Amino acid sequence: MSLSHTVLAEPRREASTKSSSLRDRLMATRRLSLRLAEPLSDEDQVVQAMDDASPTKWHLAHTTWFFEAFVLPRFMPGYRLFDDSFEYCFNSYYESVGPRHPRPKRGLLTRPSTEAVRAYRAHVDEALEEFMAQGLPAEAEAFIELGINHEQQHQELLLTDILSLFAAGPLKPAYREADPGVSTHTAVPLAFMPFEGGIYEVGHDGNGFAYDNEGPRHEQLIRPFKLANRCVTNAEWIEFIKDGGYETATLWLADGWNTVNGQDWRGPLYFEEAEGGYMQMSLLGYRPVDLGAPVTHVSFFEADAFARWAGYRLPSEFEWEVAAAGHPFEGRDLGADHLRPLPADAGDGLRQMFGDVWEWTASAYLPYPASRPHPAAVGEYNGKFMCNQFVLKGGSCATPQGHMRRTYRNFFYPHQRWQFTGLRLAADA
Amino acid sequence: MSLSHTVLAEPRREASTKSSSLRDRLMATRRLSLRLAEPLSDEDQVVQAMDDASPTKWHLAHTTWFFEAFVLPRFMPGYRLFDDSFEYCFNSYYESVGPRHPRPKRGLLTRPSTEAVRAYRAHVDEALEEFMAQGLPAEAEAFIELGINHEQQHQELLLTDILSLFAAGPLKPAYREADPGVSTHTAVPLAFMPFEGGIYEVGHDGNGFAYDNEGPRHEQLIRPFKLANRCVTNAEWIEFIKDGGYETATLWLADGWNTVNGQDWRGPLYFEEAEGGYMQMSLLGYRPVDLGAPVTHVSFFEADAFARWAGYRLPSEFEWEVAAAGHPFEGRDLGADHLRPLPADAGDGLRQMFGDVWEWTASAYLPYPASRPHPAAVGEYNGKFMCNQFVLKGGSCATPQGHMRRTYRNFFYPHQRWQFTGLRLAADA
Amino acid sequence: MSLSHTVLAEPRREASTKSSSLRDRLMATRRLSLRLAEPLSDEDQVVQAMDDASPTKWHLAHTTWFFEAFVLPRFMPGYRLFDDSFEYCFNSYYESVGPRHPRPKRGLLTRPSTEAVRAYRAHVDEALEEFMAQGLPAEAEAFIELGINHEQQHQELLLTDILSLFAAGPLKPAYREADPGVSTHTAVPLAFMPFEGGIYEVGHDGNGFAYDNEGPRHEQLIRPFKLANRCVTNAEWIEFIKDGGYETATLWLADGWNTVNGQDWRGPLYFEEAEGGYMQMSLLGYRPVDLGAPVTHVSFFEADAFARWAGYRLPSEFEWEVAAAGHPFEGRDLGADHLRPLPADAGDGLRQMFGDVWEWTASAYLPYPASRPHPAAVGEYNGKFMCNQFVLKGGSCATPQGHMRRTYRNFFYPHQRWQFTGLRLAADA
Amino acid sequence: MSLSHTVLAEPRREASTKSSSLRDRLMATRRLSLRLAEPLSDEDQVVQAMDDASPTKWHLAHTTWFFEAFVLPRFMPGYRLFDDSFEYCFNSYYESVGPRHPRPKRGLLTRPSTEAVRAYRAHVDEALEEFMAQGLPAEAEAFIELGINHEQQHQELLLTDILSLFAAGPLKPAYREADPGVSTHTAVPLAFMPFEGGIYEVGHDGNGFAYDNEGPRHEQLIRPFKLANRCVTNAEWIEFIKDGGYETATLWLADGWNTVNGQDWRGPLYFEEAEGGYMQMSLLGYRPVDLGAPVTHVSFFEADAFARWAGYRLPSEFEWEVAAAGHPFEGRDLGADHLRPLPADAGDGLRQMFGDVWEWTASAYLPYPASRPHPAAVGEYNGKFMCNQFVLKGGSCATPQGHMRRTYRNFFYPHQRWQFTGLRLAADA
Repeated sequence: MSLSHTVLAEPRREASTKSSSLRDRLMATRRLSLRLAEPLSDEDQVVQAMDDASPTKWHLAHTTWFFEAFVLPRFMPGYRLFDDSFEYCFNSYYESVGPRHPRPKRGLLTRPSTEAVRAYRAHVDEALEEFMAQGLPAEAEAFIELGINHEQQHQELLLTDILSLFAAGPLKPAYREADPGVSTHTAVPLAFMPFEGGIYEVGHDGNGFAYDNEGPRHEQLIRPFKLANRCVTNAEWIEFIKDGGYETATLWLADGWNTVNGQDWRGPLYFEEAEGGYMQMSLLGYRPVDLGAPVTHVSFFEADAFARWAGYRLPSEFEWEVAAAGHPFEGRDLGADHLRPLPADAGDGLRQMFGDVWEWTASAYLPYPASRPHPAAVGEYNGKFMCNQFVLKGGSCATPQGHMRRTYRNFFYPHQRWQFTGLRLAADA
Repeated sequence: MSLSHTVLAEPRREASTKSSSLRDRLMATRRLSLRLAEPLSDEDQVVQAMDDASPTKWHLAHTTWFFEAFVLPRFMPGYRLFDDSFEYCFNSYYESVGPRHPRPKRGLLTRPSTEAVRAYRAHVDEALEEFMAQGLPAEAEAFIELGINHEQQHQELLLTDILSLFAAGPLKPAYREADPGVSTHTAVPLAFMPFEGGIYEVGHDGNGFAYDNEGPRHEQLIRPFKLANRCVTNAEWIEFIKDGGYETATLWLADGWNTVNGQDWRGPLYFEEAEGGYMQMSLLGYRPVDLGAPVTHVSFFEADAFARWAGYRLPSEFEWEVAAAGHPFEGRDLGADHLRPLPADAGDGLRQMFGDVWEWTASAYLPYPASRPHPAAVGEYNGKFMCNQFVLKGGSCATPQGHMRRTYRNFFYPHQRWQFTGLRLAADA
Repeated sequence: MSLSHTVLAEPRREASTKSSSLRDRLMATRRLSLRLAEPLSDEDQVVQAMDDASPTKWHLAHTTWFFEAFVLPRFMPGYRLFDDSFEYCFNSYYESVGPRHPRPKRGLLTRPSTEAVRAYRAHVDEALEEFMAQGLPAEAEAFIELGINHEQQHQELLLTDILSLFAAGPLKPAYREADPGVSTHTAVPLAFMPFEGGIYEVGHDGNGFAYDNEGPRHEQLIRPFKLANRCVTNAEWIEFIKDGGYETATLWLADGWNTVNGQDWRGPLYFEEAEGGYMQMSLLGYRPVDLGAPVTHVSFFEADAFARWAGYRLPSEFEWEVAAAGHPFEGRDLGADHLRPLPADAGDGLRQMFGDVWEWTASAYLPYPASRPHPAAVGEYNGKFMCNQFVLKGGSCATPQGHMRRTYRNFFYPHQRWQFTGLRLAADA
Repeated sequence: MSLSHTVLAEPRREASTKSSSLRDRLMATRRLSLRLAEPLSDEDQVVQAMDDASPTKWHLAHTTWFFEAFVLPRFMPGYRLFDDSFEYCFNSYYESVGPRHPRPKRGLLTRPSTEAVRAYRAHVDEALEEFMAQGLPAEAEAFIELGINHEQQHQELLLTDILSLFAAGPLKPAYREADPGVSTHTAVPLAFMPFEGGIYEVGHDGNGFAYDNEGPRHEQLIRPFKLANRCVTNAEWIEFIKDGGYETATLWLADGWNTVNGQDWRGPLYFEEAEGGYMQMSLLGYRPVDLGAPVTHVSFFEADAFARWAGYRLPSEFEWEVAAAGHPFEGRDLGADHLRPLPADAGDGLRQMFGDVWEWTASAYLPYPASRPHPAAVGEYNGKFMCNQFVLKGGSCATPQGHMRRTYRNFFYPHQRWQFTGLRLAADA
């Protein structure tokens, strides 16, 4: 995921109770990053398996760099940079902050060491704690809120990136030892929920945190539609494979068909046909595909082809958002600690709207009407990634707790599939 | 332009007067293609300067192939294929019609000869004339109407493709000798026209011909906006260049910035800085840039960056369509025979809505609500190109007369710029 | 073949009878080039099927450019260049002559037209005839001799390049209609001729024309060896294929094995397995492989692997040269007009040393001891290509009559195979 | 360096004293590898900076794998493989041993861990010690001798590969802290030593260890020549730069000129122009270029161009070998512990023949007459790399003590320059 987001909400002067809760959330987030790195050796943390991914160490350092780039030197008098060279090493893409180490070479940074990065984190955390013990200016608070959310995004990437590394090697290690085994329960039967058409308000209303790409809140004209009660499962995907889905040109977008053939795709990423079924590399190691669980690690191209094959379509981002109204922002996220998507539980209504897998929508990732770029460096590129990508909704088994909301707009290129990405079917009513 | 379109309109049984007029239009279209090739030697007609372009000969043959693939063998008893091998040579991308010569190798087809392709055209034209002298089934009529429009699209491509070839060689020949010289009049001053918000009907209503990507007609919620009275001019673009537009990262989409640097773009395609100003290769040869004329041969990336630099934005396809309501579908098209865009004439209201240059919009090229794929091979890929491209509206100096309409959706990838592509600014009201 | 050669022989003032014979040879060579182009349309002559090849038109023009670059303006007072732009268009790689059109874009030169190139040839030929009617300075004579040889090299390339074009299209046209059919006679049985070791003189002695890469004449220590009496045949090559030659890593050089797999080679270039045997595209069209004829269109990598498979090795260039002593420089060359290699005739001793196919040797293409670069532009790059290429000896069915000699050193990269390249086996005695 | 070599010498049954010395040398070699890795963190040891290089960990494991692949399971009854998966992970390119992890992905092997690799080494070392305490069969002895030499080659690569990694990062760390500083003494003045022509025996005679590419010993005819008394220095190279060496096409081989421009070379690898002179990244960190020291990290292309610029040429491998006759195989090698080349000391005769930098020769890397492939897997590819590479002689500051000899043939592609490669000039007498 590209991290181009800035604070949408206006600066607010708020009570000190809020600030202390902010500090708690910040520190909890900072600790979680370290905890996610715990199962990894220093070697695991330095390597980059593909251009799209970053090393764990880089995630740990870059999320720390954020607070040096946007908060501490600016708001905390006398703050001393941990190391001048880190600005170059760990800037991601902020052109106006300065030059930076090239993205595809992040995996060559054996120095600074992972040990030094941990010291860097400790240095910055100490300063942040001290800084936040005082009353904060609202602007600083907004940046810290953003820093928390920024770090949460990287926590998800840290997990999907380490999976890309472990899947690339011959030993196929587990990030964490597998739980007892394949889930035995099947998903709730597929059903479609109807929704009425009309003019709906969508987008974030500015209460609480949101990225600037979620606003402004505005009206959308929605036509009557229906939406599947759960995500597409692995069992359903295997039917698609067996029915020749990956060999049938007419199911695919032209760019998708080129990708299928150029990359020789025959199933989701990390899928392998094996005797008696399918195996898939996962954070829990190399294991049999869980038939009832949502399919994951599929691209937009695949999601779109599957929907066509099934006689349905993907929902628009606004249909999804309208359907999600009233749903609590809860589900099997990183806090649930499964580290993999699970079958939809029985029950009425929409299941799995939040958690398990991100859901591809049919919506190109474009700016909302009347959106405005943030004037500061942090928002230098509000619209910078709004081209050739598609919106995903919901959240996944790797999304940190508290990071999901209805207006959230995740986005990836249509060929990318190393995230926990799946789909939910829709249709015109 | 990719040619993925099929007849939207329902089959109709119509009077013979209509058919004879259809025949006239068909034959006029067929003749125009040959006339466009007249300034070209057989050598000029065989070569392909880049993967995106096709040789003239290929255009002449492929537009003829269309009638063999979809009309003659099917509707005309006893029709004899001109040459069995041509189906393989001149199919563009219809997977269900059969295998085909690879697109990037179209320029290697010195055989069949251009002479043979002319004979092919004569053979098919003769059959079409004979066939159309009889009463036509409505389905055949619909295919012929589509064949006319298909050929018109290729006429525009023929011109832009030959320009790409002539620009690639050292002699920089003119497709046609230049008219007396640089236009001396300047464009009408820039002004913005206001439009009210509301729910508007957009898309084609099925009366008369349209591609299927133009429908179904449906409602869109439009917010108040204003639209420039004319296209951005070369003079304005040169200001952008001189102000460092191509060196300022913050003006660009991330993918655009990569393209600018990867391709070393410093101005529109075919632009060259020269003593005392700018030169540009054109269908009229290598000549000074006409300052008052609309800038052309710019990509979506450039159009988007320019708009940001200017403090405006691109219109959506629907804003453009709403604004164009009531405008006659007329302008300086191929029939006007300038072969280049000209400065907007003085006058009130919107100028240059049709003709001169295609106008990039901010809209991703996606299917309209409730659109349905055409069941036959001709429509095998209704949505096949609806990914990673942007919609253009209007028409250009190379668009055949009668081929422009308000609901027309042209589309190209955001980095492409060998078409006559420019832009018109917009803003929120 | 790269054309980096310059006149080895010293300048000589010679009798006018010599000059008139030189003129005759020059004019015959000039006419032959045009005759070789006769079966080709102007379209055929403009296209370039791959980077290694050049269009026919380019060959016709470049061999003419040679006389403008090195002879006419310099030695003929008042000579008028045909067209100033041609120097840029048709220079091959002479850096000190000036900038030039990029090699991979030679196929984009639809202008100047083939007609203009023919006029260019006529203009230069007329000047050369007039110029040579006078007494020539020895230096000019040397350049004209070089010009003849240079053009002869391009005649062979013209044929192999047009074959690469015709093989790339779906129609697989014949450059010339096939002779009655597959040769029915088989090659003479394979036998090995022994040669004694010793110190031998090799390289050109300066009497008569030679390229500078053939000298100086010098001593080489040769060990006893034996050499096959004829080239390896298609029948023998098919055994190699059927024995898994292309799937057995241990037979190949590492770079060769990478090429085999990267390019998916399964047989010689233009080979195709067909029902009941093998077909191969040739100058006579697509036809059954002639089992008794020498295998052709094989790379050094393949020749080397075949020799290893057969339990032999390739000869060194010096072994070949020593073995060829006393052989007349005759064989089935372009003058024999078969346009394809034929089976070795019965008879004692070495067969096919000249003509039919060029023979790969085990010798890297490197300078001879004490070789010196030619001081003028024509020899600017004496050693420029002496890296990563291998020497071939003999001559082929496409080598012009009179162009073969024992000391000739042809050279290509080890992966190249679009020339008429085959092999002859050798072994230690 | 590619490691394609096998034992040349015939198997011998020798006295136990010999075996104990072999054991000592083996264990010393094994310990040295670990000592070379000591300055490196586990992170440093896992990353691969470019396809040509391998991670330190991989070198440590692969040199250990050698003894499992060729010695222990075969000769030591009851030997237990350390880990079955290591054969796949750490085979380099032995096709007949089995499939293997792809070379460009060696840097993704965070598992097995460096710790595990150290345990692997201990396990194998223990077995080797135990095994060698017994009397050894001659064949096993030959493999162990080969294993020592194989590991020594990888020790040099370990150092040059880690330099490529440290040079790629922004911090430019030193592998070892610099010695007091720039050498202040200048090199001995350049002089040329004459050598007589004649027939010389070259190649290894089979007494003592050699790789099979060094034999058989055979006669070469040498012409009188002269050879520089020392290597070309940095000061001389800077003259070449300042004289436009890297901008003058006529100095370069055609493939070299393409590389210079394609890679934008402006000096040796790791060279950077700085205020007041030149800096170069080295094992001692980023430091001023030592003007008197031999230039290093230059390609064959550069060495060849420099020699042409200087009016000399490179020596052949046989000239070098003849000139080195009588020289002890000593010099500033890895044992001298400078980790960088130093200026040639004053003195008569040839200096620096061994140590400091490998010296490019003009000889293509080809098999010697009558060479025969080794029948076992270890020699599966005797000639596998004998194509498109050039021979280097001497040894460098990173070559382990005892690994240099007159007949040694090192070889690299002409564009490669990450080794300690320099040159010595030669000329015809």
